[in-house]
Amino acid sequence: MNNDLIYEQPLNEKTRSYLRLEYLADQLNNHVNDDQQHHCFYPLFSLAELTDRCDYRSDILKDIDKQLIVLTKWHALPHVDKQQIQSIIDQLQEAKAPLQSNDRIGCKLKQDRFISALKQRFGMPGACCNFDLPQLHFWLSKPWNERQKDLKAWIANFEPILKPITLLLELTRSTAEFRTSEAEQGFYQGTSPQTLSLIRVKLSQSQGCYPTISGHKSRFAIHFVNFDSQKHTDKQIKFKLATCQ
Amino acid sequence: MNNDLIYEQPLNEKTRSYLRLEYLADQLNNHVNDDQQHHCFYPLFSLAELTDRCDYRSDILKDIDKQLIVLTKWHALPHVDKQQIQSIIDQLQEAKAPLQSNDRIGCKLKQDRFISALKQRFGMPGACCNFDLPQLHFWLSKPWNERQKDLKAWIANFEPILKPITLLLELTRSTAEFRTSEAEQGFYQGTSPQTLSLIRVKLSQSQGCYPTISGHKSRFAIHFVNFDSQKHTDKQIKFKLATCQ
Repeated sequence: MNNDLIYEQPLNEKTRSYLRLEYLADQLNNHVNDDQQHHCFYPLFSLAELTDRCDYRSDILKDIDKQLIVLTKWHALPHVDKQQIQSIIDQLQEAKAPLQSNDRIGCKLKQDRFISALKQRFGMPGACCNFDLPQLHFWLSKPWNERQKDLKAWIANFEPILKPITLLLELTRSTAEFRTSEAEQGFYQGTSPQTLSLIRVKLSQSQGCYPTISGHKSRFAIHFVNFDSQKHTDKQIKFKLATCQ
Repeated sequence: MNNDLIYEQPLNEKTRSYLRLEYLADQLNNHVNDDQQHHCFYPLFSLAELTDRCDYRSDILKDIDKQLIVLTKWHALPHVDKQQIQSIIDQLQEAKAPLQSNDRIGCKLKQDRFISALKQRFGMPGACCNFDLPQLHFWLSKPWNERQKDLKAWIANFEPILKPITLLLELTRSTAEFRTSEAEQGFYQGTSPQTLSLIRVKLSQSQGCYPTISGHKSRFAIHFVNFDSQKHTDKQIKFKLATCQ
């Protein structure tokens, strides 16, 4: 069993938002594949709240256009995998149209009376109770294939932003490969000539610690924390590092 | 397949709290038996918040004493199942000592640094992300039997109140049996010579509606709502009703 874990830290606000949205999309995908009762509503409502606070579409459109310029240049170079590059270009092009709709992301979900009633209650402790939300009790008793269909329809509201975000983060991650590094006394500091957007740390679970990463633009620091004591470790930690642009 | 659903409505604040705590205890039991990743923390933190806001112990102790008086009287009657009554008396007696401890319920959990860090973040949308909580990412990678052990230890903090609440609600529910009833035009109104604490409605899922119940002390009303339209139904609804004291 490979027990390597990957920890990621965004170095700017936009990447931070993208990672958060990607995480929620992953969670929702799990819930579509596996019946986990009312838990599916937590990532759904988080997604609704985040997209309500901020309209990510213009950011995403700008990023798509930026990537298209880069990819088109690459495509013209010799010795590159033209087919793979073209496939990414096509996917990015395809993602643009749904982002240009007039409707705000998630606005249809807001008009759903069942969803609205649930959303109001979900933040309160223990408020998914039978007597707080009898409609949830009813919904949960429906066959899984019906609930799965509902879930898919609700998630579809967010697909215009979730699909390109996955692609964009894939491209960000592909800008750097993991290289072996060492943290003396549990501490590592790094700089880069380029502006960075994402730090990735790969670490074996068996070392018993996790990294806390901080940084901005081209500088970053990693502290390794022992899980059991929840304190900084003084040990030398071997890990793998990727600094993505 | 029996597709009857039971909906419950408390008619006083204390029963409302008990039902909420019982619901959270049920949720946590599910999480102990079945690995549902980070979802286990939602009911755990809800429980921590509710018991932090309100110390339920004196209410529970009073209720236990009240029930012990009733049960002891019953025990003296002829033609009763003395063994069963004695078993409940024993369980209630046993539940008293852990409630009389000086430590507030859940106070040990508050001192756990891992739990505290998670609790602060869990309310925010999408905040269980890798970069928000690397320690959670680490914990989730532990083998299930280790996490299960942790979970059991965390839940144990609340057992002094959860065990007797289950017993007390069982006794409340046993005060009434389900009787067939009909709601003309989706509406039913009821009164009782005694003060009631809990209304229970049993209804087949196939009727396509759920009840919304309101009431106080000895009066209550039930409106049946069509799930698909999320509106009051005008149909005659057959259901089963239990009015518990």
